[in-house]
Formats: sequence, C-alpha cells, structure tokens
Amino acid sequence: MRPAATPQADSLLVTDIHTLAAVKPGPRRGSEMRDVPMLRGAAVLIRDGRIAWFGPQREAPLDEGLATLSASGGCVIPGLIDPHTHIPFAGDRSGEFVRRLAGESYLSILESGGGIRVTSEAVRAATVEDLVAENLPRLRRMLERGVTRVECKSGYGLAPEHEIKQLEAVRALAHSQPVGLVATYLGAHAVPAEFDGRPDAYLDEIGAESLLRQVAAGGLARFADVFCDRGAFTVEQARRYLERAAAAGLKLKVHADELAQIGASALAGALRAVSADHLERIDDDGIAALRSAGTVAVVLPGTSFFLGIEHAPARRLIDAGLPVALGTDYNPGSCMIESLPWIMAIACCQLRLHPCEVLTACTANAAAAIDEHTRAGAVAVGFDADLVMLEAPTVERWFYEPGRNQVRAVLRQGRVVYQRPER
Amino acid sequence: MRPAATPQADSLLVTDIHTLAAVKPGPRRGSEMRDVPMLRGAAVLIRDGRIAWFGPQREAPLDEGLATLSASGGCVIPGLIDPHTHIPFAGDRSGEFVRRLAGESYLSILESGGGIRVTSEAVRAATVEDLVAENLPRLRRMLERGVTRVECKSGYGLAPEHEIKQLEAVRALAHSQPVGLVATYLGAHAVPAEFDGRPDAYLDEIGAESLLRQVAAGGLARFADVFCDRGAFTVEQARRYLERAAAAGLKLKVHADELAQIGASALAGALRAVSADHLERIDDDGIAALRSAGTVAVVLPGTSFFLGIEHAPARRLIDAGLPVALGTDYNPGSCMIESLPWIMAIACCQLRLHPCEVLTACTANAAAAIDEHTRAGAVAVGFDADLVMLEAPTVERWFYEPGRNQVRAVLRQGRVVYQRPER
Repeated sequence: MRPAATPQADSLLVTDIHTLAAVKPGPRRGSEMRDVPMLRGAAVLIRDGRIAWFGPQREAPLDEGLATLSASGGCVIPGLIDPHTHIPFAGDRSGEFVRRLAGESYLSILESGGGIRVTSEAVRAATVEDLVAENLPRLRRMLERGVTRVECKSGYGLAPEHEIKQLEAVRALAHSQPVGLVATYLGAHAVPAEFDGRPDAYLDEIGAESLLRQVAAGGLARFADVFCDRGAFTVEQARRYLERAAAAGLKLKVHADELAQIGASALAGALRAVSADHLERIDDDGIAALRSAGTVAVVLPGTSFFLGIEHAPARRLIDAGLPVALGTDYNPGSCMIESLPWIMAIACCQLRLHPCEVLTACTANAAAAIDEHTRAGAVAVGFDADLVMLEAPTVERWFYEPGRNQVRAVLRQGRVVYQRPER
Repeated sequence: MRPAATPQADSLLVTDIHTLAAVKPGPRRGSEMRDVPMLRGAAVLIRDGRIAWFGPQREAPLDEGLATLSASGGCVIPGLIDPHTHIPFAGDRSGEFVRRLAGESYLSILESGGGIRVTSEAVRAATVEDLVAENLPRLRRMLERGVTRVECKSGYGLAPEHEIKQLEAVRALAHSQPVGLVATYLGAHAVPAEFDGRPDAYLDEIGAESLLRQVAAGGLARFADVFCDRGAFTVEQARRYLERAAAAGLKLKVHADELAQIGASALAGALRAVSADHLERIDDDGIAALRSAGTVAVVLPGTSFFLGIEHAPARRLIDAGLPVALGTDYNPGSCMIESLPWIMAIACCQLRLHPCEVLTACTANAAAAIDEHTRAGAVAVGFDADLVMLEAPTVERWFYEPGRNQVRAVLRQGRVVYQRPER
C-alpha cells in the first residue's frame, strides 16, 4: 500500500496558460471538429494524474502548499495521439526509397527482393530486446514533439511466433518509457514468402482461433487489423479474419482503400470497426458505411506525401460528417516521417483543414480511433492529465510556424516527462 | 598581428566519415546536379578555416599533434545554404494564415488591412536592435539544421531609411552569430500605402541612384532584387530599377513568375541576373532566357506548400539543363517554414528530385545563386570548411528520415559552431 499523502501531495496547478485549447472528448464528428473552446488566461488543476479542474486562473484553487507549474504564457493542448504507426520495426529500406524517387514501381522493387519482406526479415532476425533498443529513440523523439499516446502494430513478423514477439516488444516498450502505447495485431499485413500463392493458408495460420485468443486474452493487443486492398487481402478474406478476431475479443481496424477501391471501407463499416485507415480512394458508399457505423476515418497524409501520391479526401470526409483522425503511419516502407506535427502541417496546408480540425483529429478523434476517448485526447475533468506546453501563445501561432518544434514540456498523467533543454 | 602558431595550430583533421558527400563547386547544370561523388571511409583536413585536403582516411596526413574530430561514422556534407529568405522581419501574421486556410483570398486580406503592410509597419516600428533580437533565434535554429550561409533581404521597410535599417540589421546579425549572411536590397518589394497608385514615384525614390550607390558602396548589400509580377512591378518598371542597380554596382536577382507569367524570367535572363526566384509559372521562353544567361533558377517549394498552390516545375528546369537551387523563402506572409531540410523533403517527395540533385541545389547551386560558389557550397580544396556532420551514415539514409533533425555538429570555416546536446 502506498503511504498516506498530504492532501496536496498528488496535486499540481498548471498556471500562466495564455490559451488553453480545451478540446472536448471524442469522437467529434464533421463540423464539431472545428469547435475547440480557447480559454485565455487559464489554469489546470491536476490530481492523482487526472484533470480535476480547469478554468480561468483567477478562479483557480490556490491552497497553500499546492505545487504550481508555469506554462510561461504559452498555449497548452491535450497530448497528441498517433493512432496509426508500425512501431516496432527494424531494418533499413532507404535504398528502396531512392529507387522509388527515381521512378521505379513498388512491384518491381518487390520482385527484386525489396519491399515489406526486407522489413519482415529484419524483424524476424531481431529479439524483443533488439526491437526495444531500436524503437525506444523513436518514441522518445515523438514525445519531444508532444505525442503522449501511440498505437503500435505487429505485422512484420508474419509468423505466429514473430508476431507475438513484436507484440511483446510493444509491451516492453510501454514499460520502458512514458508514452502510452496501444497494441494492434496485424498478422494479416502481407503474405510471407513461405506462403506465396496461398493467402488463405496463411490466414488460417495467422488467424487461428487459438492464436487470436492468446493475443486477446493475454492483453497483447487491443485491436486486430488487416491490409484489405488490391495486391493484399480480399474483402472476403479480411471479413473471415476480422470476424474470428472479434469473436476472440479483439476490436477491429482496417487498412482500407489505399491502393484501390475494393470495398474495404464498406467492410469496416459493416463490421463496426473502430477505425478505417488510409482511405486515399474512398468512395461515397465507403463514406456512408463508415458514417452509419460510427467508424473513425484515420487519414495518413505523411504516406501520400512520402510516396508522392494523392492525399485522402480529408476535407470531404469531414464535410460528410465523419469523425476524422490523423496519424503518421510511421513505417520503414511508405512513411519514415515520425513527426505528427509535420503531418498536421500537411493537413492544414495541403488538405485544407482548419487548425482546430487538425488539433481535434490528433487528440479527441485519435483517442477515439484507439478506443481511449473516455480517458484521453481532451481537456475534461477526470481525463488523464496528458498536456503539452507550447512556446506559441495560441494554436494559430503554433500552426503558423510548422517548421520548428515548439514543445516546451510534456506532462503525462500529471508528471513532467519531457522538458526542452535550455539553449 | 596574430601570434605565430605552431604548424598544426590552425589545422584539424575530421575523421571517421562513413560517407563524404563531395559536392563539386557550382553552378552545376541539369544532369550534373545528380553527380555527387560519395567517398566512403573519408577524412577532411582543414587548415586556416579552409579545406586543405580530403580523401580516403588511410591516406590522410597524421602528423603528431594534429587535432582530430571524429564524425562518429556519420555522413558529412557541405554546409547547407539558403539562398532566399526575408530575414530580418518582424510582426505576426498568423491570423492571416488561418484566414487563408479558410479560403479567404490574399486580395481580400490585403484590402482589410492585412498582408505585407502588416509586416512593413512592424519593421518600420522596430529598431536595428529589435530586428537583431527577433531574428537571432531564427538563424540559430537554421544553424542547428545544418545551414551555414543565408541570403537576407530588406523589402519590408519600403522607405529609404527603413530599408537601410533592415540592411544594417543584417550586418549586425552577421557579426552576432556564426551563420554567414549575404544581403539583398529589395526596396522594390511592394508599393507602400503612402505611394498608393504611384508605383513609378515610389521606384524613383527607392531606386534613386544616390541610394543605390550608398547601398552598394557601403557594402550594405551585394544584390538588388525586385518583385516583378502581376499585382507587383511591371517588367518595364523592374528593368529600369535593375539597370540602375547594376550601374551602381549591385548584382541582380528577380522575384519572377510566381503569380503570373508576365515575362519576368525573360527579363532576368536578359539582364544576366545571378538568380531568378520562385518560377511557379515559368514558360519555355523563360527557361530559354535563364539558360542562355547562366542564371540560377531558385525554386521555393515551401511557399507553394504553405500557400497550398502548385509547385514550380523543378524537375522540368533540371531536365532543361538549368542550374536549380532551393531555398526556404522564409517570411511572415507566404512561408513561415524556416527548415531547409523540410524544403528538401518536399523537393524529393513532391517535386520528384533525386536526393543528390536536392543536395546540390542546397549547396553548390545555392552558393552560385548568392555568388559564393568560388568559396562555398562544395567539398573542394581552398573552399571554406563549412561542414555538417550527420547522424545518418549516407545521404540516402538522411533523406529517408525527413521528419527529424539528424545534424550532430556544424563546422563553419573550420570551427565547431554547433553541437547537438547529448540526450
């Protein structure tokens, strides 16, 4: 049992906030995304790692002995959430990146031994400890940019033992650093070489009931995900796999409509997936299916930037009333951009989203995309005190200078877990 | 007189370079841009601030007492050069940024009192000391990203005394920090309110022979520049101003073909301008004019990214045999992206340039765009020892991870002027 504490021992008052971006809990749909109350001259009271009160500083409780932390006149936002990454990964595909820039197709790269199989070999060769060592710095840099929660997928092991190993690495990473991690089982990411031409046999192995139960019951993953697209798994294959995963107790995600429109977003809606991700080629039927299911649309503009392809129609998705989230898709093949603020700048400048829409997409709606929206992604009483202190006094000023990191400090569950070194 | 030094006192050997990107001196035209010799296992000998030798480390001079600096197995490149910025500026136009994102036109913003005049008022109200204080951190952050030389423009004073003040601020900044600065006189940036409807009268004042002589003879600027475009100065106005500037001893630059094709790049070529900048709407005649004049084409994709407009046809310009440089255009209205590496990522991923082309564009050709190509922008004997040590072992690995700063240390004229703090 922990020792009895004085009343204020676990309390902290964050003061001198020029603007508190009081994002409301998600999911926030369509036009709600732009509605972010901006409280000037605010303070936030934290108790036991949670937000206990927020409001005008002049109304803040000022008990003697209450610890305070000054935001130095900067803007404070909820911790950013990255709802789609392929951490933990291993290996280097920079050569492939340059070949693609020179015009070579992914298919040609794949045929010459490149592509996802390079990553898969590196992950298979790695131990849990290797994966932790390689991915810890990535999470540390994400934290330095204000990210306090990250979704992490398996999907490079492509064999039961190696998929489990990746999920064990996620668990070890969660215990090794302060960013909160949510794990997704993505055994159905690609067909490994030893199952060439036999995708159903692979799915039988990777989607075996016993394996899915082990993943779910062992708490190794919260979600199951599948790459349902042209050149990946068909809608029927994906459906069978996802239905088994749901029966085993996993919530669902779908990699949908990235390369072609084969009905993957419609499937996501039909199965009431928590999120459908990518959506570069979503159509009206897909939009309708997601809307009626309440599925979060996760847009990944870093990938379209990195690959030089068309972005997902994020503006249209919001205007259609969907809850849209943004993520990095951080992975060694199609997006080595780890910076969520960079993704946010692309969303503003190239997808024409309003800064408040982008902020909601990376907080409240990203939390909804990983089923954490009842405790994270918003400034609300009872929510985890995950807060980012910015140099800029307002959200507008922050977005206005996208090329530099304006994070001064990050709180995770009320503790200061990052502070920018003085220059 | 400085005291006599021991032979090695001003010498330094940079060792343990995995890859030395030995960019050749500019300008590098068309297909030459991709040709960057990559020396593995290299070393660089620096003497008196200049490169005295470079080659395989096993052949390096190893005199006893020679100071060494390890590149720790990373890649070493020439210092990056930003050939087009509007530093030093003042004031905040973040509100305008958000209004534009919401669809408002620049003209409407201008008519409601926004736009360049907001910056002009802030610069007019600032002292030299104010401008230095506001812009020093910008240069420091650019240095942290590997930038060792920056072109700085006046153009917000928009009256002789305030234009001179901006140039004096550039001079003061050059003496206050290690990044090398080259100044450009841009009196002909816009017509200030007090000259509304009288652009020729304004040009007579801002382009007066005596003023141009003061700027040139006083060493306040190396270049004169003009915004020649629809809604700015006509080709005839620009020609008259530039001819006077050339007669006063200034070299020439032109803001050309950004908003409309009115013949500005053809004018730049006809006047043998050192550079023509922007070029979003350059046509074949403009390309031919720049090519025959040897004018450097400076492409600014941060601006098109920030504004959400079409990029300049950089791929086409290189394929047409031009020397292409890249810059940030860092300014408070149309591009608050200060990060040249970010611009380089846009150039790769969205303009489809090869990493070696981009590296040449930001070193040798950027040096040519500011007339520093006989001393900077390359790894060549006798050149300034401006070198950047990267974490990545190769250029490919560096470009492959565009979302994070991989600069470990920066040397400027042989001195370590930036070192990343240990984490």
